[in-house]
Amino acid sequence: VNWSREEIGKKSEEVLKEKPYDLESWTILLREAQSDGIDRSRLLYERLVKWFPTSGRFWRLYIEHEMRARNYDRVEKLFQRCLLKVLCLELWRTYLAYVKETKGNLPVFREKMMQAYEFTLDNVGLDFGSIQVWMEYINFLRAGEAQGTFAENQKITSVRRVFQKAISTPLLNIEAIWKAYTQFEQSTNMTLAKKLLDEKSRDYMSARRVVKEYEAVTRGLLKGTAAIPSQGTTEEMLQISLWKKYLCWEKENPLYLEDSTALAKRVSFAYEQYLLAFSHHPGVWCEAAIYMESVGKELAEKGDMVTAKTWNDDVAGLYERALAVVPSCPLIYFAYADFEEAKMKIEKVNSIYDRLLGVEGIDPSLAYIQYMRFSRRAEGIKAARAVFKKAREDSRSKCEVYVAAALMEYYCTKDKNIALKIFELGLKKHPEDVDYGIAYVDYLSHLNEDNNTRVLFERLLTSVSSERAGPLWTMFLDFETNVGDLMSILSVEKRRNALLQEEFKDRGTVPLVDRYKFMGIFPCSQADLRAIGHPDVLRQSTTSSGIRP
Amino acid sequence: VNWSREEIGKKSEEVLKEKPYDLESWTILLREAQSDGIDRSRLLYERLVKWFPTSGRFWRLYIEHEMRARNYDRVEKLFQRCLLKVLCLELWRTYLAYVKETKGNLPVFREKMMQAYEFTLDNVGLDFGSIQVWMEYINFLRAGEAQGTFAENQKITSVRRVFQKAISTPLLNIEAIWKAYTQFEQSTNMTLAKKLLDEKSRDYMSARRVVKEYEAVTRGLLKGTAAIPSQGTTEEMLQISLWKKYLCWEKENPLYLEDSTALAKRVSFAYEQYLLAFSHHPGVWCEAAIYMESVGKELAEKGDMVTAKTWNDDVAGLYERALAVVPSCPLIYFAYADFEEAKMKIEKVNSIYDRLLGVEGIDPSLAYIQYMRFSRRAEGIKAARAVFKKAREDSRSKCEVYVAAALMEYYCTKDKNIALKIFELGLKKHPEDVDYGIAYVDYLSHLNEDNNTRVLFERLLTSVSSERAGPLWTMFLDFETNVGDLMSILSVEKRRNALLQEEFKDRGTVPLVDRYKFMGIFPCSQADLRAIGHPDVLRQSTTSSGIRP
Repeated sequence: VNWSREEIGKKSEEVLKEKPYDLESWTILLREAQSDGIDRSRLLYERLVKWFPTSGRFWRLYIEHEMRARNYDRVEKLFQRCLLKVLCLELWRTYLAYVKETKGNLPVFREKMMQAYEFTLDNVGLDFGSIQVWMEYINFLRAGEAQGTFAENQKITSVRRVFQKAISTPLLNIEAIWKAYTQFEQSTNMTLAKKLLDEKSRDYMSARRVVKEYEAVTRGLLKGTAAIPSQGTTEEMLQISLWKKYLCWEKENPLYLEDSTALAKRVSFAYEQYLLAFSHHPGVWCEAAIYMESVGKELAEKGDMVTAKTWNDDVAGLYERALAVVPSCPLIYFAYADFEEAKMKIEKVNSIYDRLLGVEGIDPSLAYIQYMRFSRRAEGIKAARAVFKKAREDSRSKCEVYVAAALMEYYCTKDKNIALKIFELGLKKHPEDVDYGIAYVDYLSHLNEDNNTRVLFERLLTSVSSERAGPLWTMFLDFETNVGDLMSILSVEKRRNALLQEEFKDRGTVPLVDRYKFMGIFPCSQADLRAIGHPDVLRQSTTSSGIRP
Repeated sequence: VNWSREEIGKKSEEVLKEKPYDLESWTILLREAQSDGIDRSRLLYERLVKWFPTSGRFWRLYIEHEMRARNYDRVEKLFQRCLLKVLCLELWRTYLAYVKETKGNLPVFREKMMQAYEFTLDNVGLDFGSIQVWMEYINFLRAGEAQGTFAENQKITSVRRVFQKAISTPLLNIEAIWKAYTQFEQSTNMTLAKKLLDEKSRDYMSARRVVKEYEAVTRGLLKGTAAIPSQGTTEEMLQISLWKKYLCWEKENPLYLEDSTALAKRVSFAYEQYLLAFSHHPGVWCEAAIYMESVGKELAEKGDMVTAKTWNDDVAGLYERALAVVPSCPLIYFAYADFEEAKMKIEKVNSIYDRLLGVEGIDPSLAYIQYMRFSRRAEGIKAARAVFKKAREDSRSKCEVYVAAALMEYYCTKDKNIALKIFELGLKKHPEDVDYGIAYVDYLSHLNEDNNTRVLFERLLTSVSSERAGPLWTMFLDFETNVGDLMSILSVEKRRNALLQEEFKDRGTVPLVDRYKFMGIFPCSQADLRAIGHPDVLRQSTTSSGIRP
């Protein structure tokens, strides 16, 4: 059932069924919602913020609509849902407007308002565009009545404090705030002013320089765009590279802050901005989490356990937020699990892997493999085997689970026979999987059990379809080149060529080159490889190793 | 010292010092040579055929110049040098002209001339453009005097034989020869003609169809261009692909020949044509040799040992011709050696490897490796060790020789200790080679000797320069992921990241993905990999395996 009443809106809803992130369609529906009553529009807004939970703009439009209808209870609840997760300046300004509107008549208004300003600047005061909030707050403080010298002095101190914080923060158009601050000090106390301004001018100059650098570094960077899953477009790649450049620059500490926590806060804030636009990109979440994790570690190493704990809690919080937006990406679960494992929270790690395994529609193989490895490290081989048992019983599991379990037995318990049994078990379940066969044969051939290896090759070559057997034949040939006589080599080669006739027909001398190459050395020049059409020439040309005759 | 007397010629000689295959410069010098006396020009011609030994055109111009000066002895010797190696129609027509010119006055002229025609058609009569030679020969035979019925009949028989051979050979403009043949039979014996023409028309129709196919298949193919080393140009690649297409088509037996030797002769002739234009391409020589080898094997399997021997001799001859043109390409030596090894000619194989090792300026590592492998197969481990000793004493040898020798001991004699000693020996000689370190550590880690492996990692990481240590760190991390606890994993990762800081700075979550991927499974989608900038995404996109989950 469509929500829209308009023809164009109905069309948009059709489009969204196929492409739920189509911004053009959302814009059309949003326009309809905005010109309608909130009671009907609410449904649309909820859908919107469900698809775009990190879009400050969409939350703001929703909230403003509720505010116009004076549904302040609802507004309050909406802010609870989004404010701390969406560090978007415009959204926070709406929050300030809301406080102003709803608390204006209260006796504690000034106090509430001050709290709101402090809260806002604490969260988005590092935004390069936040100068107006700073100025508003200063003006708000200055407008307060102060009776008596003590109160007057207190007022001056608090205004000065905010001024000084603002002029040492890189803000666009920072010159205006410096000018205001100069006037403020000069109008307050001419004698003191010179000293204070002298003291602070270095911070201001530094902040101003950083603003200039920021403008250069972020040229072309788009902020506040609604986050959509990766499309792989050039524009997307460009934006990612610009964000990376911006983050790199922030990490290099352009302000020369001596307080590493202050630096970390700036970087974290930049990551928050990055995430607003790229919340569907698991890599960005992990990058941010890993950065914050490293800050926590650094703090712990310095002995500041309290702050370290706060940071670590934030990391866990970040991973949880990531999983809320991208609930089926294993990368985030794995990084989260490793983060908790490093803090020895074994139960927590177990629950993270279980959550991932419970996600519907995923291939759990890699999850089981990482879970198994974790269990081996944290609780020993028996726990790992229990995970493997669970994996075997899960019908979604693929053959890679067997490979990982077998190799774990070989490398950790050093038990060849268990490894072999697991490989056999997997082969029974996945007799047609070439990659599995390759892994099995790779394992066996390293054990120097030539006859068993030969038998395995023959078994695999009957169970795998001949169109997919190419890599197995290559391995068989390699194996015979290592241990067999020329007759065995030629016999395997002949069988291979006969079976893969179609594939080899146009390959000319490529198989010959493969027969003779060793490590990085090829039996002919790069130009010859190219003329022969050998695939390695493409890879070689991008490495520095070069081809030797 | 320059040969040319002209300004433009001197410039060309300067160019040729840098680019000895510059055809434009050769053309300028050739023009000067042709307008000068042969005694002075001979020097230039000799240089020309030294650089372009497979160019029928250059040989022909040289010979024609000598013929104009009536230096028949020299001409005779020139033909001996080139005729059988250069199956170029125009060159062979010059040969016919030479026989006509020099033997015209001899009493045995007709006999000599017939021999010359038979010889020529035997060698280049399969050329699609050879119709004129066929016609000339037929006219020559018809012009012969024949006295008496017996002689007349003999003449008719021989003319008919050549006609019938011609009309069953795919020749451009074959319709003309069919018309001439029809008239011949009809003028000879009206009654017999119908029967004979009926019999032969199927062969003719088939040949005519093949000519049409040939014209389509070879559209764009350039014949008779002078062979130069691979330049990697698009035009070169296009020509190679056209030649391959042409060869494929010939191998598919478009004439439906039942006699497999006749088919093989057609294919061989096509390869000879291909080689004239691409004699500097080792791949083409090997392709041709392998094809001829397979024909020899097929004949031997059918029991026709005599013809098989002829073909095999031709293969050896082909390899020798290849080595004369491309004397420093290991690929040809290796293929040649394997060809002789298959016939158990151990001494011959030894001499082929020795020839390759004697080539100046080559890196003999791969040659030693293949030689070692051959010796192991043919004469046992002692002989192979003798080759390895020789390789060690050769200052040109690189570290790969040690890897091959060590693995040979491990896989063939199953002796871990000898293998280990060889790896150690190589490490002493090549302590800075990362690829060597990787091969050594790969060997050791498969033996499950965890502590030794760890020690080796640490040794390698001190001896290898940190800029090149990236892959070693990755292996170390993989190793700890397999056998270590999380602390060891994180510790190795931290050390790696610290050392490779610069390299990892912009890599974001790429190392994280690498930590979790297993076999073909990645912890995120292909789109995510692309956004993260993971290098595997490029490779994956060209394979069919796809990324899971």
